[in-house]
Amino acid sequence: MTFTPPAKSMQFLIRHSEEWKSILATDLYQEIDEELVGDILQGAAQFSSDVIAPTNWNGDQNPCRLEDDKVTIPPGFKAAYKDFVDAAWQSVATPAEIGGMGLPQIISVATNEMIYASNMALGLCPMLTSSAALAIAAHASDALKARYLPKMINGEWSGAMDLTEPHAGSDLSVLRTKAVDNGDGTYALTGQKIFITWGDHDMADNIIHLVLARLPDAPSGSKGISLFLCPKYLPTETGELGERNKFRTIGLEHKLGIHGSPTCVMEFDGATAWLVGEVNEGLACMFTMMNEARLFVGVQGVAIGERAYQAALDYANERVQGQVSSGEADAPIIHHPDVRRMLMEMKSGLMGARAICMATAAANDLARSLTDETAQKAAHKRDALLTPIAKAYGSDMGVWAASVGVQIHGGMGFVEETGAAQHYRDCRIAPIYEGTNGIQAIDLIGRKLRRDGGEAMRALIGELKSIHAICAPISVSLAPPQKEHMDICAKALAEGLETLEAATEIMLNVSEDNALSGANAYLQICGDVISGACLIRACCRGFEAGDEDAASMLALTRFHALTYMPRAAHALAYLPQAAASIFDFPKRSLADL
Amino acid sequence: MTFTPPAKSMQFLIRHSEEWKSILATDLYQEIDEELVGDILQGAAQFSSDVIAPTNWNGDQNPCRLEDDKVTIPPGFKAAYKDFVDAAWQSVATPAEIGGMGLPQIISVATNEMIYASNMALGLCPMLTSSAALAIAAHASDALKARYLPKMINGEWSGAMDLTEPHAGSDLSVLRTKAVDNGDGTYALTGQKIFITWGDHDMADNIIHLVLARLPDAPSGSKGISLFLCPKYLPTETGELGERNKFRTIGLEHKLGIHGSPTCVMEFDGATAWLVGEVNEGLACMFTMMNEARLFVGVQGVAIGERAYQAALDYANERVQGQVSSGEADAPIIHHPDVRRMLMEMKSGLMGARAICMATAAANDLARSLTDETAQKAAHKRDALLTPIAKAYGSDMGVWAASVGVQIHGGMGFVEETGAAQHYRDCRIAPIYEGTNGIQAIDLIGRKLRRDGGEAMRALIGELKSIHAICAPISVSLAPPQKEHMDICAKALAEGLETLEAATEIMLNVSEDNALSGANAYLQICGDVISGACLIRACCRGFEAGDEDAASMLALTRFHALTYMPRAAHALAYLPQAAASIFDFPKRSLADL
Repeated sequence: MTFTPPAKSMQFLIRHSEEWKSILATDLYQEIDEELVGDILQGAAQFSSDVIAPTNWNGDQNPCRLEDDKVTIPPGFKAAYKDFVDAAWQSVATPAEIGGMGLPQIISVATNEMIYASNMALGLCPMLTSSAALAIAAHASDALKARYLPKMINGEWSGAMDLTEPHAGSDLSVLRTKAVDNGDGTYALTGQKIFITWGDHDMADNIIHLVLARLPDAPSGSKGISLFLCPKYLPTETGELGERNKFRTIGLEHKLGIHGSPTCVMEFDGATAWLVGEVNEGLACMFTMMNEARLFVGVQGVAIGERAYQAALDYANERVQGQVSSGEADAPIIHHPDVRRMLMEMKSGLMGARAICMATAAANDLARSLTDETAQKAAHKRDALLTPIAKAYGSDMGVWAASVGVQIHGGMGFVEETGAAQHYRDCRIAPIYEGTNGIQAIDLIGRKLRRDGGEAMRALIGELKSIHAICAPISVSLAPPQKEHMDICAKALAEGLETLEAATEIMLNVSEDNALSGANAYLQICGDVISGACLIRACCRGFEAGDEDAASMLALTRFHALTYMPRAAHALAYLPQAAASIFDFPKRSLADL
Repeated sequence: MTFTPPAKSMQFLIRHSEEWKSILATDLYQEIDEELVGDILQGAAQFSSDVIAPTNWNGDQNPCRLEDDKVTIPPGFKAAYKDFVDAAWQSVATPAEIGGMGLPQIISVATNEMIYASNMALGLCPMLTSSAALAIAAHASDALKARYLPKMINGEWSGAMDLTEPHAGSDLSVLRTKAVDNGDGTYALTGQKIFITWGDHDMADNIIHLVLARLPDAPSGSKGISLFLCPKYLPTETGELGERNKFRTIGLEHKLGIHGSPTCVMEFDGATAWLVGEVNEGLACMFTMMNEARLFVGVQGVAIGERAYQAALDYANERVQGQVSSGEADAPIIHHPDVRRMLMEMKSGLMGARAICMATAAANDLARSLTDETAQKAAHKRDALLTPIAKAYGSDMGVWAASVGVQIHGGMGFVEETGAAQHYRDCRIAPIYEGTNGIQAIDLIGRKLRRDGGEAMRALIGELKSIHAICAPISVSLAPPQKEHMDICAKALAEGLETLEAATEIMLNVSEDNALSGANAYLQICGDVISGACLIRACCRGFEAGDEDAASMLALTRFHALTYMPRAAHALAYLPQAAASIFDFPKRSLADL
């Protein structure tokens, strides 16, 4: 169960992304260059492969346990996490001004994909720490920042997000955990939280919970929720670990996958906490961390898909079975066209989803680094527009790829010992947490499309249309079969963008109910078309730069252009009547027929 | 975790299937009428729901164990199986001349779907028994039939299929298990078999293994394989259970799902066996049982999908979360359009796959009951054509539906206790066993399409085209919204059949490599279009018959017509260049890029 991160593909997509040169040209990232990026990707690949990846199977087979209020984590995790912290991988994209390495997020999409693929369960811990640190940096007082950020940024202390309660999942507005002002600058938290990932463990010295709770006089609903920082151990004045705070883990979920990560039921019993941000502004503060987390959940989908792909490829190269049409006896199954087809579906689909995640991160990088206000604002809107697509499309693709990975293993895929089944189980959470993919679709068509009057999406479509002007001269310069591949891609691009444009206008003009009913179908069109367009553009830029991998990437993209890009086009007929199609079937018939 | 089989939908699809009246008109089935069918479906539904369904979760949580050569099965299974045998559910479709109830297979598709949905792991045992009995009835000597069939047909003795060896899975031609003639009419079997479902247990008094093995002087490859009957206990002359035969279970697989069914590694050590059929004709004899088993694996996919659907529907009706656009506070999540969309995708997709399984069974019924030779031959070819589609499309749909079922449960879907995760794990085997879905696709385009010169497929398409002549007058007779639904269906039907026809001609004319490369895409087109056509036809017949459920079924079919039927149309551009699309991407780049 070895794993080698696809550093070459990642570097190709980064170098030839539309935004890369602009990112390098900003003052914020002036110290970054290609060589540094190459070194970082190589280093992260080596570390993931050597240190993290070997712990993955252990984590699955030795799930976390709760005994005497204490969470026991799988063997090997603590040592691997220590190495991770010591090698400073925690802070790749953390801004330099708060003590991080300050690399662009597009780089951390790559390094984090490597970590998640190596061990998704373990990788969730640094992800939560990083998101919590971001929220603290953005909203907490200087005193809290000074006390907590340094140790969270290097990973000595980890973070956790305490949002969900049994009756308050997707809808946090009804949460009940209480916060009472102690009158000394602290608050006392009381209540129960569920689904708290890495809520307790002993890998880090302290665990900093960000908890949503309600003050006694707070308005009901989402406008009465505040955010609190609640550490496992209360730091003393000198910053040492002091008293154990008054909350504990009262249960661990028995989950389908990611067995190596403890999913805790936390009980707060007057726990000491500090307010982060303004009173009753908790949800907005939480979204600071949520947005980044959503992108990285999309990356998790790609990551598990990639690991499932590599396992399937290894198996297909080793397993000898059946004869191929060329008559070669005893051929490994990779020679069977249908097995090769499945590998191509995995690799091209994942490459497209990876390109979307990177485009999202790149927009975020530009939103943070551009100085021109108009351009900066546009980049911010692009980031916001792409985030739900990256989250949903990446995580759905991961689930699909992991299932195909099982299929390539045949009967051995259904047997746990090959590990293919673990990927199928692990990745299933990604379409659910950090906002279900249904919620992503609603976010896309609501906040990101219709409330915006379609401006950000039309700008994106316009930009993607300009790829044609790049394809044409490159096609002329290419010999067969690359020329043919490029022409197929250009045709798929034109048709795909036509579909996306038509779907966008439909979604802007239909009723609210119809928009909600068609949201998922629209998100699928966005994912299939934008991912393909990003790949095609990267290929063009790769040829322009004389990149030796451009021809391979183009052949892969041609497969994507024929299978994924046009896949959702039939939804154009469905979108205008989505609500009628769903609601004309009587609700009682859902049960009775 | 209650379960109520969808008897009403099933009866609708049976009554209004194209073949039903023809089946009833044959001599073989002259004693069958609608009322009897209704009684049987109701009885099977009640039995499945009351007796079998409650054992499902137990089976998952208490996997089979092997201790001291003895397989221990989950609590409750033995009693449920005894009730199953006592109530005579084993022999629903077994021909009357060998002691079964002799009902059409289209009925047993329905009753078996109920059993599999109630407990797939347990249901595999009767399935294997039935398939083994079929092979014995078709190929064994009269003496063997007399000794083994009666007790297998009522389920007192169970059956097992021993095909796979570690190096011989999809390709059985390389198997090595040895058979040596004992000179007394028996043979001695020696070798190891893996993946033997229900290979050992104590639910039945005896277990009759059908084992593929090779005689010493047999030619190599698939032409040197013979089939043997090898009972766990050797019956005495008087038919009592005698000596324990010389084979045993040396291991159980640790599987992703269907934990309640023991998957055995069997070691044969000179076990006594009898030849079934002719020497070296074993593979052909095995295919007698394989074909039926393939259909029923497709049914398993539909079954688990249906159970996952019902669980998701229940959860969606109970779970209160978020506000709906109508402003209703505290609404159960079923009021969210995207949740309703997921339920519709599950229900309509499963209904379509169910219709294909029933069409396959109906063709089989006609192949067995028609007396006109031409018509009988055509029915046989229809059965052979549809079997790989039913197997692959049904099992893929089941995996898809189970995944959507987890999604509707949100975070609770990822927690094992709700049971949604069990369905996601259980159903994953269906696309793999009894010939992977890739092998089904190759069977479809090879033996069933190209070797046939497209005759059977063209006949089917022609028949489906004639549905238009039924739709038009019915549309005229309908009021809105049914009229609109029917017109949408008719349009989707026309476009779908055009796609299927074009794809068929492409597949008949491309190179062998290209056909193999496009096989899966072609099978998807067949599944999406034929399932939709079957549903549309059933709706038409339902309206003609004044069936009160016709309007609901039509509304469901309209959703299918807009989402599933046109889904694979984009593959038309891919099919002619499938091989190039796959193989132009260099094999080394699968690993290197």
